[in-house]
Amino acid sequence: MRVNQQIEVSATHPYSIFLGASLEDLGEFLEQKIGSSHHLLVITHPTVGEYYLQRLLKGLLAFQYDILYVPAGEEGKSLEQLSALTSEAVACGADRHSVVLALGGGVIGDLAGFFASIYMRGIPFVQIPTTLLAQVDSSIGGKTAVNHPAGKNLIGSFYPPLAVWTDFSTLQTLPWEEIQNGLAETIKHAVLGDAELFLFLEDHRQEILDRVPEIYRELTTRSLQVKVKVVSEDEKEKGQRMLLNLGHSFGHALETEAVYRGITHGQGVSIGLIAAAYLAKARGLINAGEVQRIFSLTKGLGLPVSVQGKDPNTLLHLMEADKKNKNGQKILILPDSIGHALVVRDAQDEEILKAWEKVITE
Amino acid sequence: MRVNQQIEVSATHPYSIFLGASLEDLGEFLEQKIGSSHHLLVITHPTVGEYYLQRLLKGLLAFQYDILYVPAGEEGKSLEQLSALTSEAVACGADRHSVVLALGGGVIGDLAGFFASIYMRGIPFVQIPTTLLAQVDSSIGGKTAVNHPAGKNLIGSFYPPLAVWTDFSTLQTLPWEEIQNGLAETIKHAVLGDAELFLFLEDHRQEILDRVPEIYRELTTRSLQVKVKVVSEDEKEKGQRMLLNLGHSFGHALETEAVYRGITHGQGVSIGLIAAAYLAKARGLINAGEVQRIFSLTKGLGLPVSVQGKDPNTLLHLMEADKKNKNGQKILILPDSIGHALVVRDAQDEEILKAWEKVITE
Ligand SMILES: NC(=O)c1ccc[n+]([C@@H]2O[C@H](COP(=O)([O-])OP(=O)(O)OC[C@H]3O[C@@H](n4cnc5c(N)ncnc54)[C@H](O)[C@@H]3O)[C@@H](O)[C@H]2O)c1
Ligand SMILES: NC(=O)c1ccc[n+]([C@@H]2O[C@H](COP(=O)([O-])OP(=O)(O)OC[C@H]3O[C@@H](n4cnc5c(N)ncnc54)[C@H](O)[C@@H]3O)[C@@H](O)[C@H]2O)c1
Repeated sequence: MRVNQQIEVSATHPYSIFLGASLEDLGEFLEQKIGSSHHLLVITHPTVGEYYLQRLLKGLLAFQYDILYVPAGEEGKSLEQLSALTSEAVACGADRHSVVLALGGGVIGDLAGFFASIYMRGIPFVQIPTTLLAQVDSSIGGKTAVNHPAGKNLIGSFYPPLAVWTDFSTLQTLPWEEIQNGLAETIKHAVLGDAELFLFLEDHRQEILDRVPEIYRELTTRSLQVKVKVVSEDEKEKGQRMLLNLGHSFGHALETEAVYRGITHGQGVSIGLIAAAYLAKARGLINAGEVQRIFSLTKGLGLPVSVQGKDPNTLLHLMEADKKNKNGQKILILPDSIGHALVVRDAQDEEILKAWEKVITE
Repeated sequence: MRVNQQIEVSATHPYSIFLGASLEDLGEFLEQKIGSSHHLLVITHPTVGEYYLQRLLKGLLAFQYDILYVPAGEEGKSLEQLSALTSEAVACGADRHSVVLALGGGVIGDLAGFFASIYMRGIPFVQIPTTLLAQVDSSIGGKTAVNHPAGKNLIGSFYPPLAVWTDFSTLQTLPWEEIQNGLAETIKHAVLGDAELFLFLEDHRQEILDRVPEIYRELTTRSLQVKVKVVSEDEKEKGQRMLLNLGHSFGHALETEAVYRGITHGQGVSIGLIAAAYLAKARGLINAGEVQRIFSLTKGLGLPVSVQGKDPNTLLHLMEADKKNKNGQKILILPDSIGHALVVRDAQDEEILKAWEKVITE
């Protein structure tokens, strides 16, 4: 079994992240971990299945399995899709001893993970992240969810996987704009928790643009470790975990305003990060040079650092609906150096408006 | 705060059952436990609300609250209802710090508990059971669920409540057939785990039929303690907890065959209990005298001990769909004395068919 690195995540039910693992070898791992008598439910997107299912199935010869397809896109993360998966699972005889394999990006991970958490009150699942975003972010931390007309990720659970199985080679087929979504989270991780990662990104900008596999291995491994560290200290999002929302309070407002169309999550996070950096500078938390570095790196990786023709007041108002806010008070995450961030609870509407204005062009 | 008795349930998150508490006093308890800054979401049925909401609300003057109504009946336990609750909760501003109060029977407890477990990935909830079944059974043990076209309680979670708040006076308005559903579970609890409770039921048959409050206090308290003991030892239903399925494998088959119409859950359990007793006797686990006592008590409390015109083979087949079965093997719970039961994994189809035949009349 070829695995380059194994990282332990401490949680109610601790689990391991296997980095540089091969899709072909997951079966062997499962045989050792749980035995081959378990029925497997592979949940994936048609495209991802076309690219990678053969490789995964090669290793599952000892198992009985079924494959359930979910249409790609954020719309797939819905209660309706969950209900459809339930019908299909029952139809193929999935029972309390079945195990879900989530092969795909964050949408598959969130949906299949949530499904696993509530099917017959919970069956085990394995994350097999195939997007950069899923590898550095969504497959780690045990959060699962589906969307609801009343809000994104409104319905979900904290449900740690049996394991995260990360095969870096899957990134090769990933479209550039999807890579960018993962890069935005990686810059975020660097700013909030790893100054060296930030330097690494600055030093290897061109190789990142050229999609050099070795560079991605390194950046993915370092990036996900920032998340592992944070979630290991705060599984249920009561404290430190909020730091991961750096850029997100602003970013979510942008996404919501665009009704999740026209602006990708990564773009929202990038612009949000820049807005947070401006606000941090206005408060004297970081200096102009640090803002400039964040700005240059983000821009240099092809991510947007501003947005056109938005109304700051509308965006401010949308930040109020964020589910992390308590009693209407706005909680923001701001960097206080490159490599460190803090939770700010007393941000005033005027400061936030000013930060918005800095990232909005005419 | 008037509370007659407080029982601790050990679980991942331990909680207390308050027995002989008053609806009016829940607010005071919550103020002490979590403070009054939390928004409350009371989820109930219209009828139950009409009877008991005023009393509950009297104690909640310090809180901000909203009331969400769910139509009565098993149909209310659905993903659609869950989705509707989600919309309503968002509309009234429920956030991650809101607390759900589930005021009603098992349907409300299961639905509101499941809703609480997944709304914004989990908010606290309090069980306020108002049916005998909910007081002795469904409010305890942390199981929540909704139904799905593909199966009853197919989607759910293990999610312990903040507390169970049991006001015995609510039983006074409960229709007799609903009382019977709770009595069936109480006989089950007595047979599987409390010989003295069985004697108590035998000795007080008439008072039970006459609905004497003091007798119900006693039987409820003893009955729920059997469940508390079992679930405290096996929170996630991996072993001992299966004992609570005494009578249920048979009973579920009857309910399923009747498509949950025409036969109540309590009736299913009663007949199932008798079938299990016959099977236990055929195996030499219990004697004829013990079967007779179970039979007489069940019948004496007005519960059915047989069913008319069913096909044993159909019912046998329906037992196979039970989600507790592993790899198609049938797991049965059988009494080996009055007050004790065990898990049987080698029951043959012929024995089960014979047990069915004993409880089927022409
Ligand atoms: N649970 C968490 O902690 C967490 C954290 C961050 C984001 N998320 C969620 O993640 C989701 C976004 O995830 P995402 O960015 O991975 O998007 P995604 O899952 O929608 O994947 C993006 C697209 O790439 C395709 N794809 C996936 N792998 C591929 C591959 N190897 N080659 C070619 N195409 C491939 C997918 O089919 C999809 O069309 C959002 O729903 C977000 O809410 C969750
Ligand atoms: N979670 C568990 O561990 C568990 C265990 C057993 C059963 N259950 C579930 O419980 C449900 C059955 O619960 P139930 O038997 O309480 O039925 P129920 O909740 O449907 O209540 C029965 C009826 O009585 C009404 N009612 C409730 N309290 C009343 C009162 N005080 N006075 C007058 N009317 C009142 C209700 O509105 C309803 O119409 C099933 O869905 C079953 O799956 C769950």
